[in-house]
Amino acid sequence: MNKNAFRTLSYGVYLCTTWDEGRPTGCVANSAMQITSAPATIAVSVNRLNYTNEKIADTGYFSVCVLAEDSDPLLIGKFGFSSGKDTDKFDGVPYAVRGKLPVPDDCCAWISCKVVDRMETSTHTVFLGEVIDADTARGGKPMTYAYYHEVVKGATAKNAPTYIAEPEPRKGEYVCDVCGYTFEGDPATLPDDWKCPVCGKGKEHLKKR
Amino acid sequence: MNKNAFRTLSYGVYLCTTWDEGRPTGCVANSAMQITSAPATIAVSVNRLNYTNEKIADTGYFSVCVLAEDSDPLLIGKFGFSSGKDTDKFDGVPYAVRGKLPVPDDCCAWISCKVVDRMETSTHTVFLGEVIDADTARGGKPMTYAYYHEVVKGATAKNAPTYIAEPEPRKGEYVCDVCGYTFEGDPATLPDDWKCPVCGKGKEHLKKR
Repeated sequence: MNKNAFRTLSYGVYLCTTWDEGRPTGCVANSAMQITSAPATIAVSVNRLNYTNEKIADTGYFSVCVLAEDSDPLLIGKFGFSSGKDTDKFDGVPYAVRGKLPVPDDCCAWISCKVVDRMETSTHTVFLGEVIDADTARGGKPMTYAYYHEVVKGATAKNAPTYIAEPEPRKGEYVCDVCGYTFEGDPATLPDDWKCPVCGKGKEHLKKR
Repeated sequence: MNKNAFRTLSYGVYLCTTWDEGRPTGCVANSAMQITSAPATIAVSVNRLNYTNEKIADTGYFSVCVLAEDSDPLLIGKFGFSSGKDTDKFDGVPYAVRGKLPVPDDCCAWISCKVVDRMETSTHTVFLGEVIDADTARGGKPMTYAYYHEVVKGATAKNAPTYIAEPEPRKGEYVCDVCGYTFEGDPATLPDDWKCPVCGKGKEHLKKR
């Protein structure tokens, strides 16, 4: 089996949000798809290790918020590389309640859903949600997962279904040990207040490999 | 609810294949996603009106064959705009049996699966398949659904979960009444043996709207 075949499936980059007893929370998802058109339903796959999974099950609601190519990549670092259990994912993130769910302003669309079914797998839950409301937001081109890898140079979190051990970075590359962001060049040339564009951590996290 | 939000979800373009009593058959799918990484599982959504749905249920096997940007768009017309019930989808399509399933040669990767679970919705079945074998094939960049719409200028079949009544074509546009392909220009200037690049039908199917 050649797992590189899995990399040819096309995905977007989404923030999947819900509520944690009145506090907004969420995680990054790339596996979301429309299942039926009338009534409109959306399936999203969330790892059971993600705190968001538990909270979607508790509340019965989730929103799929679509990131644009020019959305702040720090959103991906914030939502994808820390846990809502001990972090306030929405700290410093402007958002509004849309279709009952918290939706960051920096998204190009959102689809808010009520859970109507679920399928459990060995590691992930596929939630099927009936759309309660949806809208395009601030505009922009939806970010594809390929764009995230090729242009943003972001990595895949270990809880993602699409996680495959990344190939070894090329010689001279540095990798952020928090989020996997690849930096090409010499970190010594970076200003002291440099922050990783994906997770926002400092340059001390760039490790040569 | 603004259904344009649904168009911001990112998809690929796949041929979902299976067997019909020893005869290869299949349909176009755009909603496929990896669900777990170990063991690897893939979910694909197929309309119950599609003959392929019945055959996947009968055999318990399907393959997700990934189309490349330069795959012949006639494959989409052939697999997406006719039924395997009364058509031989593989007629004239070079293919090989890979991981027990029929895989057209003109794909950039394939993922063959055994059905391990399913979720029924009002119109579609979400099949969950454990990957039995997968490989990259002839290479090429995977076709995204956005590329299919913007570059190939193809339309969406009515059985697709992502189907939304298309916006009215602009003045002077012609639309293929078989597959929805949009032609800009005057069909009178086309040679008599012109064939629609998506479904292969003649220019008599181009209708001004």
